[in-house]
Order: sequence, then C-alpha cells, then structure tokens
Amino acid sequence: MTITIAVDGMGGDHGPSVVVPATVDFLRRDPDCSVVLVGREETLRPMLARWSAEFAGRIVIRHASEVVEMHEAVASALRGKKDSSMRVAVDLVKAGEADAAISAGNTGALMAISRFVLKTLPGIDRPAIASILPTVGGHVYVLDLGANVDCQAEHLRQFGIMGALLVSALEHRERPSVGLLNIGEEDIKGNDVVKQAAELLKQSDLNFYGNVEGDDIWKGVTDVVVCDGFVGNAVLKSSEGLAQMIAGGLKEEFSRNLFNKLVAVLALPVIRAFKRRFDHRGYNGASLLGLRGIVFKSHGSADAYAFRCAMERAAEAARQRLPERIAARMALIHPEAVGA
Amino acid sequence: MTITIAVDGMGGDHGPSVVVPATVDFLRRDPDCSVVLVGREETLRPMLARWSAEFAGRIVIRHASEVVEMHEAVASALRGKKDSSMRVAVDLVKAGEADAAISAGNTGALMAISRFVLKTLPGIDRPAIASILPTVGGHVYVLDLGANVDCQAEHLRQFGIMGALLVSALEHRERPSVGLLNIGEEDIKGNDVVKQAAELLKQSDLNFYGNVEGDDIWKGVTDVVVCDGFVGNAVLKSSEGLAQMIAGGLKEEFSRNLFNKLVAVLALPVIRAFKRRFDHRGYNGASLLGLRGIVFKSHGSADAYAFRCAMERAAEAARQRLPERIAARMALIHPEAVGA
Repeated sequence: MTITIAVDGMGGDHGPSVVVPATVDFLRRDPDCSVVLVGREETLRPMLARWSAEFAGRIVIRHASEVVEMHEAVASALRGKKDSSMRVAVDLVKAGEADAAISAGNTGALMAISRFVLKTLPGIDRPAIASILPTVGGHVYVLDLGANVDCQAEHLRQFGIMGALLVSALEHRERPSVGLLNIGEEDIKGNDVVKQAAELLKQSDLNFYGNVEGDDIWKGVTDVVVCDGFVGNAVLKSSEGLAQMIAGGLKEEFSRNLFNKLVAVLALPVIRAFKRRFDHRGYNGASLLGLRGIVFKSHGSADAYAFRCAMERAAEAARQRLPERIAARMALIHPEAVGA
Repeated sequence: MTITIAVDGMGGDHGPSVVVPATVDFLRRDPDCSVVLVGREETLRPMLARWSAEFAGRIVIRHASEVVEMHEAVASALRGKKDSSMRVAVDLVKAGEADAAISAGNTGALMAISRFVLKTLPGIDRPAIASILPTVGGHVYVLDLGANVDCQAEHLRQFGIMGALLVSALEHRERPSVGLLNIGEEDIKGNDVVKQAAELLKQSDLNFYGNVEGDDIWKGVTDVVVCDGFVGNAVLKSSEGLAQMIAGGLKEEFSRNLFNKLVAVLALPVIRAFKRRFDHRGYNGASLLGLRGIVFKSHGSADAYAFRCAMERAAEAARQRLPERIAARMALIHPEAVGA
C-alpha cells in the first residue's frame, strides 16, 4: 500500500530548508511512500531539482500562494488564508489525495484548520494533541497538550481511548497502559472532573493503571498519561524551560574557566551520549487526534532529522488507519452517537 | 524582638536527627530567636543534652506523645492524634506561645491541622501553599502548590496578593511582580477562570505582569507565579521528576566505562558548582499562607541545612508579621468581609 503524505513545505521556523531535506531522507528510507509538497512553487521547485530524477513520481509539488506565520492569529489563518500551504495540505487529506498531513507551523492554526476542514470523528467531542516525551527507560505519550481547556470527565475518557489507540498504531502494542494525571495530597486527591474521569476510565475496557502524579510521567509508569490541555501544556512548557535552564547552567559551569573548559572537552563524548539518549528530536511529531483524517504537527524549530521522524509517525498512523480505529472503538461505546 | 518558633521535632523522613542539628545551627546564627521543640521528650531530651548550657532558656522541649506519619490519612491525623508533635506545634501558635510553627511532616495533615486550629484570615477564602523555585538568574515564588483544586478567579487573585506580600516580607521588596500561569495557544488562551483572574489582577493594585507560560517560571520572568493548586502541583512534581531523570541519566553516562569514570572525577568540581547554584535545599520552606498564624512546611527529605533554611524563612515571616500584613491588605479590599 502506498502512503501519500501532504507536507506543508513552508511551515516552521526554517520552512523548506528543513522540510525538503527531511522529505528526501524520508522517501529514501520508505520506498512505499510518496509526498505532496505544498507551498510556493517558485521556492520549492529549484530546491527539489537535484532529486527530480531519483524520486520521479514520488514527489509532487502543489502550489499554495500563502503562508501561515508562526505567530499569526488563528482567525486570520483560518479565514484569511484559504490558499496557505498549511490549509492546502489539510485540504488534500479531506479530498482523499493524501493519507496524512504534516506541518511545522503554528499549532493553534493547524488545529483550527484541521478541525474546520476535516471535522471530528463520530463520538469524539474534542480533538486532542498528543506528544511523546522521553522517560527513564523509554518514552510516554501525553495528551492533551493544549487543544482543550476546561475538560469534562467524558473528554478525559476519550483522550484515554485515543491515546491508547495511538500507541497501539505507532508501536504495535496491544493494551498500552493509561494513567490519569492527578495530585497526591491526601485530603483532596484531585478535582471533581479528574475523580469522575477515573471512574469512567475504570469502567472502560482500557488497561487503566489509575492515577499518576507529575513525576510519574518521567518515570514511565504508564504508556499514556491523560490530562486536561491546560495542565498538559503547563507541564510541557515548564519541562522545556527546566531542561533549558539545566542545560544552560551546565554549559555555563563548563565554560567558567580554563580548567573547566578542558574538562568540558574531555566530557564531550559523555555529554553527547547523554543527549542522544534523551534526544527530543527523535520524539518529534505530535498527533492531532480525533479528526476524520490524520494530521501531525512537527515542532516549529525541528531540524531535518526531527521533521523526518514526525513524517515517519504520520506515515505509520496512516498505514494503521488510526482514525478508522478510533471511530470503530467509539462506535462500540456510543452506537447511538455514530448512527449505528 | 524575640521570635519563638514552634518546631515539630518528629516530622519528616528523618525526624529529630535532622531537626535537632538544624535547630542548634539556627539558634547559633540568630541570637534573637528561641525554639520550642515539640515531640517525645524521652527522645528529644538526650539529643539536646550537649547543647543545654549553650542555649539555656532558648530551647524548651514540649512533650507530645504522638507522631503524624508521613503517609497517614489527614482525617486520622486531624481527629485521631490531638497530641501529635505537629498538632501541638500549631496549637502553640494559636495560644500565642510561638510566633510561627514549622514541620517537615505530611503536607496534607499540616494544612488540615493549621486550617482547623488557626482558621483563615478575614477576607481569605482558602489558604494556599507557596514554594520557592530556582530560576536562571535567581528564584521565584509559586502558589498554590496543591492546597486547592477547582479554584475560582477570586481565589487566584487572593493567591496573587498573598504571594506578593510573602515576597515583600521575606525579601524586603516593595512591589514584586506577579504573573498568572496560562497557556499560549492562540485560539484558546487559557480557561475561563484564568481569564477572569487576569481581569481581577489587572484591576488590583498589584504589580501584575500578565500571563506567563510554564517555561517562564524557570526564566524568572516574574517574582511570583500564581496558579490553581492542581496545575501547580502537577508542574512541581513533574519538574522534580524531570530533574531526577536528568541527574540520573548524567550519573549513568558518567559511570558507563572507565574513561567516563575518569572524566567524572575531573568534572566533579564543575558538577558540584552547578549543583550548588540550583541547590534546592536553600529554597526549602513552603509557606502556608492565609492563616491566622505562621506555618511553614519543610520538605520531608530535608537535611539539617535545608531545615535550617526553612526555619529562617519562618522567623523572617514572623518578624515581618506576615499574617497581619495580609489581613490589612484584605481589609482595604473587602472592608465588609472583615467587619470594618
């Protein structure tokens, strides 16, 4: 089966200078895939020229005259730029010309456009954003990371179902464990929504582990961690900030004086091995779940390696027909909601 | 003015083996303070014997027959152990025999006991827990860290006021800046409660910075960050977990083989300097704010240095009459609520 990925060629901090080499690398490694590269033809055509023979028929350029800016207001991107590379990539999924879309552009705009163009799956109230984070011994999928605030218990249950199916699809695992992010103070044990969500998840046929706390995310206690998008976003952003502070502090100490600099040179291979182990680039590719189509979001600052990793995730989700899996599961739970 | 601190001598992972040396060190450094050490007299008396001459009259032992366990249910600690060292320490504040209480015990129990014994200040709906975290260039106070979930906008405003007054009292700063933790996705910009809280904080006479995101906590963008206790606890716990994962990963890489171990020996002074810089022990001492009395919580695993730091914070809060400052500010805002 050939999988076609519609790639927003203009999105992200680096645009085509990252997307084009990532696409080339992706196509070389996965001979069953093809790519529709969406964006300004006059920009993309010359960049692809040297590979036109190698990938004849496997890369098509689809011209789109506009670009959604990284900090552009969602309303402007959604209503004002109907010929943006982001929008056209998602349109291609809607039209059945691509099996998945991917963009490194503005997350809010991508979610709004995807939701508007593709619509949510039957039985899903709200789409969610799921990302992968490194853990002590592997990695964990966390959702929602900011698409939804003020979630109700039923939404958290749906996130649990979608997260478990995402792990099954991408990692071919049968019953991934699902944890519900909660807090541990004895007298409160979480807010009402989380308490209700725990009940719903217990009653579901998921492999529900129970409550997890913030530190359990990094311990890899479960395969999936479910939370409200406000909490998930706060945790994700603060983790990024903390990791940056630690990395920056170490760098400063290692360059404080000549002795420290010499030690740094010796320590470089050790530090590099450490970095490889928790390399966030390998975890690139957040999934916009719950839509009638596959959309992946690459980190805006991704390099070609990271963008290619996200493309591989999108291709695997398409191969595994992730939206159909989610729809089928929801139909079992809410047959009335899907008109079955 | 002599400040008397009631110290729960039995709380925390290490009990008196940490509390006693911390108390000795604290009293040596602050000749204007005295301590009532609360706990089992038969345990504490022999441990203090060698310092009885040095601190004659500055350490008093108050016997308490029970101990609240670290994982004991709050109800059991509150209703079942009226002669616990934690309870008696808080009772001493209520009775005016101590200016502040401090415990390294169970946070939930300490908050429940403090709230029950001391009651909240007029105009304060809910007490909050405020902690200090290191930032790139200094430190930041964050509240609430788990005392309240399901906060309303008015609660967040009160947290902002209390947090600002805490910084003023402990650091002698006039108008500390206050940020409201929010998320940045363009189309949502936070939940309804946070949006309303931002309006209330704008209208207040606080030095309100506006919204901050998770990574801004570590960048030290503001002096105070205000959030719901659920979010604050999730961020705090996940940060602890991430820092542990990074530290553990570095340790593993540096001990992977003989060469790495040799590099580690050379790098030790650099790593130590780094650790000192972000030493969480110096930030020990969470404040239970909004009560009619001063209560501080030390981390359960604190060592003597960390516990002493928390004692110093409690003493300074007492010296600055923090509860009176909060009450006075609330009386200006809600004269009707305080019967003025």
